[in-house]
Formats: sequence, C-alpha cells, structure tokens
Amino acid sequence: MNRPNSSMQLTRAADYGVRVMIHLAGPSTQERISLPALAEAADAPESFLSKVLQALSRAGLISSRRGQSGGFQISARGRVASMLEVIEAIDGPICLNVCLVSGRSCIRKAHCPAHPVWAQAQTAMLQVLSEARIVELAREKQPSV
Amino acid sequence: MNRPNSSMQLTRAADYGVRVMIHLAGPSTQERISLPALAEAADAPESFLSKVLQALSRAGLISSRRGQSGGFQISARGRVASMLEVIEAIDGPICLNVCLVSGRSCIRKAHCPAHPVWAQAQTAMLQVLSEARIVELAREKQPSV
Repeated sequence: MNRPNSSMQLTRAADYGVRVMIHLAGPSTQERISLPALAEAADAPESFLSKVLQALSRAGLISSRRGQSGGFQISARGRVASMLEVIEAIDGPICLNVCLVSGRSCIRKAHCPAHPVWAQAQTAMLQVLSEARIVELAREKQPSV
Repeated sequence: MNRPNSSMQLTRAADYGVRVMIHLAGPSTQERISLPALAEAADAPESFLSKVLQALSRAGLISSRRGQSGGFQISARGRVASMLEVIEAIDGPICLNVCLVSGRSCIRKAHCPAHPVWAQAQTAMLQVLSEARIVELAREKQPSV
C-alpha cells in the first residue's frame, strides 16, 4: 500500500496489519472491536488503519459489521494465519529482488551467480515469517497491552 | 539510492552493484574496465551505474582511474566483501522493519510479540547474504558472461 523508508523494508501498512491481527487474536480481547479501539491498540492513525483493515477483510482474515454493536473480528482463517500471510494480504507477495518475482523471468538467471543467493536469502526470511502464527504470538502478549 | 518496487525489495542500485562487483572479481576479467563495458556486463544504464560505482568507490570496494587507460578495478577489500557489504555500501543498513533500525527505539518493543520475529527473520536473511562472498560467486560464473 505505501512505500517503505529504505531498501528491503516492510511497509507501515503491513506492520500495522500484523499488530492489529495479534490484538484481535488476543485471548482476553472482546469479540468485536471498534476502529478507534484498534487504532489505539496498534498505535496507528485511524484513517490509515481503515485501509489496512479493508485489505485484511478482503483476504478473509477478519470480518467487520457495521452499526452500534459493530466492529472488527478475527476470522477462523485469521486465527491460523502466519505473519507472512498477513503481510502478503496487505503488500502482496514478498520478493527480495525483481529476479524472484513469480511469472517474470530474468534473462540473467541462467548464468547469474547472485540469483541463487537471493532465492536462498528470501527462503530463509519467509520461513521465519511463515512459522510465526498470529494466535501463538497473541498468547505471548502481556495482559497489560 | 532509489526506491524499491514493492515491500521488502532490494533497490535496483544494489542489484546492479552486486552484478558489477561479481563481474569485476571475475578470474578472467581484465584489470581495469571502462564504464560502458561494465554497463554492458551488468545490463545496466551507464548514467545510473555511474552513481552505483561512486557508492562502491566511497566504500573502498573498488577503485577508479581517469584517462585513456583508466577504468574501474576491484580493491583488495572488495575481493573479500560479501553480498551484504556490497548492498549496504549502496543502500545503507538493511532493516526489515522500522523497529529494527539501530539507535531508534520502538515504544512497543518490550511487549510486542512481533518484534522478536522481525529480528529473527532479518537475521536469517542477513546470514545468507553475509556468507555469500563476491570472489566465490565470481568463480561460479560461466566463462561466456
């Protein structure tokens, strides 16, 4: 959604998305939470966060209901999601280098000694992010937050 | 130097920087190489590449000499450099998330369950990039390139 501040940096949108998902998955979190309450929990501006929530909703990771008793709720799919799934729901697939973009082919690939290193670096990072489950992270959260 | 196309993506400048360094470290590469020859080897536009070469030179990874027999040459330090050192010479330190920027502190750090995951994902990626030595990658390169 927005541009990172430096090379290889997560967008703020994806950062906020992860924060929100962990909050929504919290064991002591009430069923539905309003946008202002979520914005406070994620230290995020409401207007920006509402776009993040739209992306999470489109991906089926949360659901929302309008009206007085409305708000945002984590879905069953959201509960089992990894940090990687949350990031990709917001930013699209992670590609450390253009040469790793799925469906595109780099003419240098066959002879480029850097290509396998990019691929290996990306795999190492994605593995960590795909093993981090939102619901497990929410359990680690201190009750004060 | 330039902005990446998506989240967590290397800049084109750093990508070209790695290509150039591998070319300069090649066992069959002549001692000094001109900008047009380097641009061809890296599939990079000359004007853009000259900025990349300036950054590599400032970092002591290459040296340059003006004049008819001039050109660019890898330095002793460049020969032992890793891909990570080349990237950071061009883009500055890699930080997957704002909360990992050295010298800055995130107020959420103490209670944020995502923070250690970002740190671990970054470490996994940087380890791969710091183990990939330019001179070893240059040895793998096929002679046709």
